[in-house]
Amino acid sequence: MSELIIWTLDWVPEGPRGFVRDLRLRWACEEAEIQYGVRTVPFADRQSNHLEQQPFGQVPFLSDGELQIFESGAGLLHLAKKSDKLMPCDPAGEAHALQWVISALNTIEMTTVPWWFLNISGTENSELTGWMEVRLQQLERILSQRNWLVADRFTVADLLMADVLRVPQVRDFGHRPATEAYITRASDRPAFSQAYSDQIAHFEAADRKRAGAET
Amino acid sequence: MSELIIWTLDWVPEGPRGFVRDLRLRWACEEAEIQYGVRTVPFADRQSNHLEQQPFGQVPFLSDGELQIFESGAGLLHLAKKSDKLMPCDPAGEAHALQWVISALNTIEMTTVPWWFLNISGTENSELTGWMEVRLQQLERILSQRNWLVADRFTVADLLMADVLRVPQVRDFGHRPATEAYITRASDRPAFSQAYSDQIAHFEAADRKRAGAET
Repeated sequence: MSELIIWTLDWVPEGPRGFVRDLRLRWACEEAEIQYGVRTVPFADRQSNHLEQQPFGQVPFLSDGELQIFESGAGLLHLAKKSDKLMPCDPAGEAHALQWVISALNTIEMTTVPWWFLNISGTENSELTGWMEVRLQQLERILSQRNWLVADRFTVADLLMADVLRVPQVRDFGHRPATEAYITRASDRPAFSQAYSDQIAHFEAADRKRAGAET
Repeated sequence: MSELIIWTLDWVPEGPRGFVRDLRLRWACEEAEIQYGVRTVPFADRQSNHLEQQPFGQVPFLSDGELQIFESGAGLLHLAKKSDKLMPCDPAGEAHALQWVISALNTIEMTTVPWWFLNISGTENSELTGWMEVRLQQLERILSQRNWLVADRFTVADLLMADVLRVPQVRDFGHRPATEAYITRASDRPAFSQAYSDQIAHFEAADRKRAGAET
């Protein structure tokens, strides 16, 4: 079996820890019980030091033997093919899981990430806020009718949607009890806890290495 | 063979004609020589009149026999499975086409659509503009090195990326000759021309029907 590697940054400041998107791939591997290793690119010059592997200078990217894949959404769908724990086996279930993966990336995250981006830069925009609010309320309606998006069970679609929704600023915006319960249900899963604590430990080890290099 | 239906709006004002996303699915069907029909939901109350088929009130959605799929990105990937004209047959080519599809939706369109949304509402934001500019320049670098994103030929990834990039306001922003040549190369394809003129004809027929109903 080929070696699966999740590539991420060697270090990040405290703010983004627990939210760097390698967590999505770690979580998927934990759910599907896929062995993986972690390798890193340097935080310094991260926008340009790995353009051959990721043309937008982002992390994570995945290598699976000879195959390299960037975009965490594409990495997730690649991993989901390996396990029916992440992806329904029937064609309709598979199409619907894919539909909700795209929905998380292109309908929900398209409003939440730009909103968050302006929010942290202190230039909130009322049009963007209103747009996000409509999308989140539409999703609240769906999540008040079911526990998981597809096939009555947790799939890769929930992994991604819950990760999109659990951004603290987005979670604190408005009152959406079904969405809140959904995020809790997803992040209470042992595979999420493992992935989360592994990411935190990865960056804490980098802190210690840095401190050691300075003494 | 099951009947394939692209669902769109029965009418839209002139502004969005040629850019309603049913064009993505029409274009894919033309490239792959897949027969399809078109059905509609009313423009009036479009945000709420088809929530059972599309929980965010958007178009298009696709029906393929009993199977219904929303999100144009998911519809494209569903259609791409039907034809090697849209999707490479080898696993690496398929993974890379998927990677660029997600990139178009979650890295490029995540900056262009919110920018466009604020641009047309007259509240341009410099942070958002700067973010989009970086992404478009990174993509310009890629497109200056190759004609198509994957497998040295047109695939579903190019169909989507070119459609994301051809939004007039985005196209007019900055100077990116390789990107401009790429958009031209994609939209010069007969399948694009057919899809485009069919969408225009669809809405013009709706104009005539409206005019007839009023006389």
